[in-house]
Amino acid sequence: MSATIHRMPGRAAPSLQPMMSLVAEDMNAVNAVILARMQSRIPLIPELAGHLIAGGGKRMRPMLTLACARLLDYAGTRHHKLSAAVEFIHTATLLHDDVVDGSGMRRGRRTANMIWGNNASVLVGDFLFSRSFELMVEDGSLKVLRILSNASAVIAEGEVNQLTAQRRIETDEDQYLDIIGAKTAALFAAACRISAVVAERPESEELALDAYGRNLGIAFQLVDDAIDYVSDGATMGKDTGDDFRDGKITLPVILAYARGSEADRKFWKDAMSGLLGETADLGHAQSLLAASGAIDDTLARARHYGQRAIDAIGMFGNGAAKSALVEAVEFAIARAY
Amino acid sequence: MSATIHRMPGRAAPSLQPMMSLVAEDMNAVNAVILARMQSRIPLIPELAGHLIAGGGKRMRPMLTLACARLLDYAGTRHHKLSAAVEFIHTATLLHDDVVDGSGMRRGRRTANMIWGNNASVLVGDFLFSRSFELMVEDGSLKVLRILSNASAVIAEGEVNQLTAQRRIETDEDQYLDIIGAKTAALFAAACRISAVVAERPESEELALDAYGRNLGIAFQLVDDAIDYVSDGATMGKDTGDDFRDGKITLPVILAYARGSEADRKFWKDAMSGLLGETADLGHAQSLLAASGAIDDTLARARHYGQRAIDAIGMFGNGAAKSALVEAVEFAIARAY
Repeated sequence: MSATIHRMPGRAAPSLQPMMSLVAEDMNAVNAVILARMQSRIPLIPELAGHLIAGGGKRMRPMLTLACARLLDYAGTRHHKLSAAVEFIHTATLLHDDVVDGSGMRRGRRTANMIWGNNASVLVGDFLFSRSFELMVEDGSLKVLRILSNASAVIAEGEVNQLTAQRRIETDEDQYLDIIGAKTAALFAAACRISAVVAERPESEELALDAYGRNLGIAFQLVDDAIDYVSDGATMGKDTGDDFRDGKITLPVILAYARGSEADRKFWKDAMSGLLGETADLGHAQSLLAASGAIDDTLARARHYGQRAIDAIGMFGNGAAKSALVEAVEFAIARAY
Repeated sequence: MSATIHRMPGRAAPSLQPMMSLVAEDMNAVNAVILARMQSRIPLIPELAGHLIAGGGKRMRPMLTLACARLLDYAGTRHHKLSAAVEFIHTATLLHDDVVDGSGMRRGRRTANMIWGNNASVLVGDFLFSRSFELMVEDGSLKVLRILSNASAVIAEGEVNQLTAQRRIETDEDQYLDIIGAKTAALFAAACRISAVVAERPESEELALDAYGRNLGIAFQLVDDAIDYVSDGATMGKDTGDDFRDGKITLPVILAYARGSEADRKFWKDAMSGLLGETADLGHAQSLLAASGAIDDTLARARHYGQRAIDAIGMFGNGAAKSALVEAVEFAIARAY
């Protein structure tokens, strides 16, 4: 198997299809748990949760739990409930994120906060978060509970950190990596790691899967942050320039700012601080990012973490599961091209 | 011991002092856990959490856990961490509540959302909620985890239910009881119940303490909802008429609406729907509440639940702990007078 993210010419574009096929049956079981456990006698809860949960997400995190369990030849079903718990944590985070960012679109659809209001999104997020803990408690593994409750605290801390860094052009690459390590990579890592716990594998395998998930998560977020400056809204379901308008200091901006002229730095500073308001010039930002190589180098960083993810699972035997996990990394990177 | 909430003339007003004295030493230990575990390398987290946690709350819920443990002669220290977890759940809920209600004052101070913004309150609330689960996981009792994760889901469901009922004058007493049973009484019940779990007492004692906490919580909320129409802002640290302005359908309104004339009902309907905006006449509302006996009867209902709380712990031996728990109920009721 060619464990590399530099693809050979002529080879098909990497996709999530192999991973989706690998776990299709398990994912049906997870979807059944998700549907059953987002129910409530308060109709607004399944209505709002369903909008987001049924809204075309890739189910990336539960899919990783299932694929890693397959890598370990786990034959049980405990990971179904736990995958649903992971997806609920993620969904709760998205609901609160969209409130905090005032987002109007996600995955090409109106956000829940736009349809039902911020208040409903905050409270239904809280409900899903509580429900995720109920699911974990039902599973009954204190080790899994420790991993996922810790990931949840790290995510929340990362979100606060991001809020603190917002509009602060002084944010550097270390702080940025710290933020995405917490808000994105921690749950990827936990999702992968818990499969080794339910499969009762040694600590070394837990840590290997944790490293795979963590590095994949970082690569994933780096590519997302690059795409925010290059995509068109139609393909990504989110508008180009969201981060720019919100004053989110992502790696493309950090690199372009560090490499820019006096005038460029003034532009970035004013634009990210929100001083320019609606007139902030996204087109000019994009040309500075291209000229400074900031987008290319953000993607080079993503490839670096992607390669680390692939190497982290080197100890496991080759086969369909490992190939699917490797291709998931390649897919995460290839989205940018 | 006179287990009644009808106080004899000349007797001192009931207070929380006996309970506070009973658990003073334990509460120091709980406060140390709270302080230690709200820390984070992101300065905004302890700053914002500390504002609310240090902001003069009574620590009613952790105090109940400690007092119930004392009732059971529990000699360990496991309940310190768990009491802190209970307070964190409560604090997270308050942070999100104040965002949802757009509240500007709590306990006589500006709310966190007013000082640091809604976004910070939502995210720090999420952090405290995650942290509470970490504390429970450290304790390691799946039974405690089940009780508290279930309470959390019930609270969130109750909050959504309340949001759905807001401004709907058709809300009836059953739905109101359902809402306060979830948003307030569930955590009171769980706080009391977990003391029996750590003290390894039989299920019957768990259920007795659960019933004590649940009924006390309902009494507490009923009195709060009455006070909202009779207090002056100075004594309660919250402004009279908050519920009225927010269109929260509480029992005083439900009773006055049910008993009112055609004209009274039109007034309540318009006022609670928000149609009257700033000009909604709180003075008129107060006179209708007085004339219909709605406040008196809300307090009569509170006494009923208070009595049930007291009777629920009848099985336990008399002593300082039981007296303190009984007086806490009497205090909850007496706040209205």
